[in-house]
Amino acid sequence: MKRRTFIAGATAGALTTACSPTGEREASKASVGGETFRWSIVTAWPKNFPGLGTGVETLVSWIERMSAGRLKVKVYAAGELVPAFGVFDAVAEGVAEMGHSGSYYWKGKNEAFQFFTTIPFGMNAVAMNAWLYEGGGMELWREAYEPFGLVPLPVGNTGMQLGGWFNREIKTPEDFAGLKMRLPGLGGDVLRRLGATPVTLPGAELLTAMQTGVIDATEWVNPYTDLASGLHKVSKYYYYPGWQEPGPTLECIINQKAYESLPEDLRHIVHAAARVANQAMYCEYIARNYQALDTLRNTHKVDMRPFPPEVIARLRKESETVNEALANKSELARRVYDSYKRFRDETLVWHNVSERMYYAMWE
Amino acid sequence: MKRRTFIAGATAGALTTACSPTGEREASKASVGGETFRWSIVTAWPKNFPGLGTGVETLVSWIERMSAGRLKVKVYAAGELVPAFGVFDAVAEGVAEMGHSGSYYWKGKNEAFQFFTTIPFGMNAVAMNAWLYEGGGMELWREAYEPFGLVPLPVGNTGMQLGGWFNREIKTPEDFAGLKMRLPGLGGDVLRRLGATPVTLPGAELLTAMQTGVIDATEWVNPYTDLASGLHKVSKYYYYPGWQEPGPTLECIINQKAYESLPEDLRHIVHAAARVANQAMYCEYIARNYQALDTLRNTHKVDMRPFPPEVIARLRKESETVNEALANKSELARRVYDSYKRFRDETLVWHNVSERMYYAMWE
Repeated sequence: MKRRTFIAGATAGALTTACSPTGEREASKASVGGETFRWSIVTAWPKNFPGLGTGVETLVSWIERMSAGRLKVKVYAAGELVPAFGVFDAVAEGVAEMGHSGSYYWKGKNEAFQFFTTIPFGMNAVAMNAWLYEGGGMELWREAYEPFGLVPLPVGNTGMQLGGWFNREIKTPEDFAGLKMRLPGLGGDVLRRLGATPVTLPGAELLTAMQTGVIDATEWVNPYTDLASGLHKVSKYYYYPGWQEPGPTLECIINQKAYESLPEDLRHIVHAAARVANQAMYCEYIARNYQALDTLRNTHKVDMRPFPPEVIARLRKESETVNEALANKSELARRVYDSYKRFRDETLVWHNVSERMYYAMWE
Repeated sequence: MKRRTFIAGATAGALTTACSPTGEREASKASVGGETFRWSIVTAWPKNFPGLGTGVETLVSWIERMSAGRLKVKVYAAGELVPAFGVFDAVAEGVAEMGHSGSYYWKGKNEAFQFFTTIPFGMNAVAMNAWLYEGGGMELWREAYEPFGLVPLPVGNTGMQLGGWFNREIKTPEDFAGLKMRLPGLGGDVLRRLGATPVTLPGAELLTAMQTGVIDATEWVNPYTDLASGLHKVSKYYYYPGWQEPGPTLECIINQKAYESLPEDLRHIVHAAARVANQAMYCEYIARNYQALDTLRNTHKVDMRPFPPEVIARLRKESETVNEALANKSELARRVYDSYKRFRDETLVWHNVSERMYYAMWE
């Protein structure tokens, strides 16, 4: 899923308003003590969008309950206070104290940001969290956002996505030649190397574009999200796995000055709430994907197919090239990718005798 | 890893003392407000035991920092206040407000408790957390512990374990006949059905027992823990995967009355700290296992082998029989297993097109 998705879902035309209730701070005797903070969080999603939007509600609910109301955070859907793609700047400028979106939306600020969401043939959710929390990832992410006056926190993961909806069969790498596929970002760069044409389209136009043959394929998220999209009505095949986004991390950003204005206990509460919400979203997707997958397969008779091993091998090769090119764009990008890649490869060695075997045990 | 492990590590001879500092409650102006609580947590581990013991420190550190010191929890290693196997009773009786151990240690109270840690061919950490948090698992666990006046929380997961150290090659299911293996609990019941003799031995005697041939094999935890054990010096093979414990969840238990004495915000803080520590331990194991695995393989030249598919298939069949027998022991066990098994099987369907393919992408 890419940023264009959310333009369609956002309330059209809403811009930054002058009546932002952010930054309000009040003394209150109802709280367990100390100052009371009234914050805002601007998001890149429609309100309560399944998974992504509910993840934001999880975050602010834990903050409010743990702080006994000393820190309350009002949620703004995309377009309500700022547009979906205005989240980063709005929080950096203090229009809102917090934001929820994905770091790869802000690659225009620094290409290296993409590593903190996901990259083609990157890490799955399990490895990503271990890298961020225990493998040095967070230190690099904080360093990357520090020049913008922002504190980043991982808040949510969709888990591995699927490969997308196709109206053309993919039997060999050559079948990508001439394919018009909606797949922006690094995944699109990989497809281009196979002779395909990556296309950027807003979510609302996808159904028609697939139906009329303007595009031959489109990626989306996972069964839980895709079922509602209706793409199964206009597509022949549903391919897996989602090599282009193996475990996307969502981000919460906090304005550095607002963060520093909090007493220490509230800062810890924000960090813990972020970790709870990070895990909760991943768990929610796992718990909901089965039912949606079952409905797609058995009610809608969707034809699901794995990419053949030869196709996966070629996509992996081209992905490494694209990822290396990204790493070469700056000194920071190089350091982040070196850390990321080493952790991914080492974790795969361990998981080769553990998690991989777990899934193989049932065959 | 089973309970006997920790007997060896615990301070010998220490028993419940009369000088417990638990339950102290004091008013303090230094805190952000309200009462101050001084609690104790009794654990089944040696102090700072890698992974398990450090997980407890993570838990109490988050509680203390988020509560601004309003709730401080003093950690007791196994044997300091109560023996490792006294944790459940000690917390139920209010000797300590909290405990950290594994639910399957208390199967004497109710056989159904084992499902909340792990079972042979049970769920991995990813599925287990999704079941507990989003699939109804916690509701069942709370119901199971309610009669004992205890509130359970998942706090930590080792991730998938390995199959154990062997001095006999396992090529077919028949090679288990006559094998003497240290493998207590449900895994031992499975082995018995293959003609092996499960043995219970304290951790301290394992090296000699392997060296002298008293046993032919023993399970342990994972490379991070096993490297320190020295078992590679007395074993020919290191088998994988750990079918007997695919994703053991550690538990934190809280005395119900102590829990209810907390103001609501502190209760939420305890819950969030538990969720943070739950994820942190799993991340820590992932981040540390590679290096230990590399040392075992490349420095100590350990011969690592996968159980052949035919062996896995037979172990799976016998495990299902053993798990079913456990489910038949009580009405509660049946309800827990039905929920557990359905979630495991449904999640495997989803992971068959996602996580399983992630690990397969690199082949």
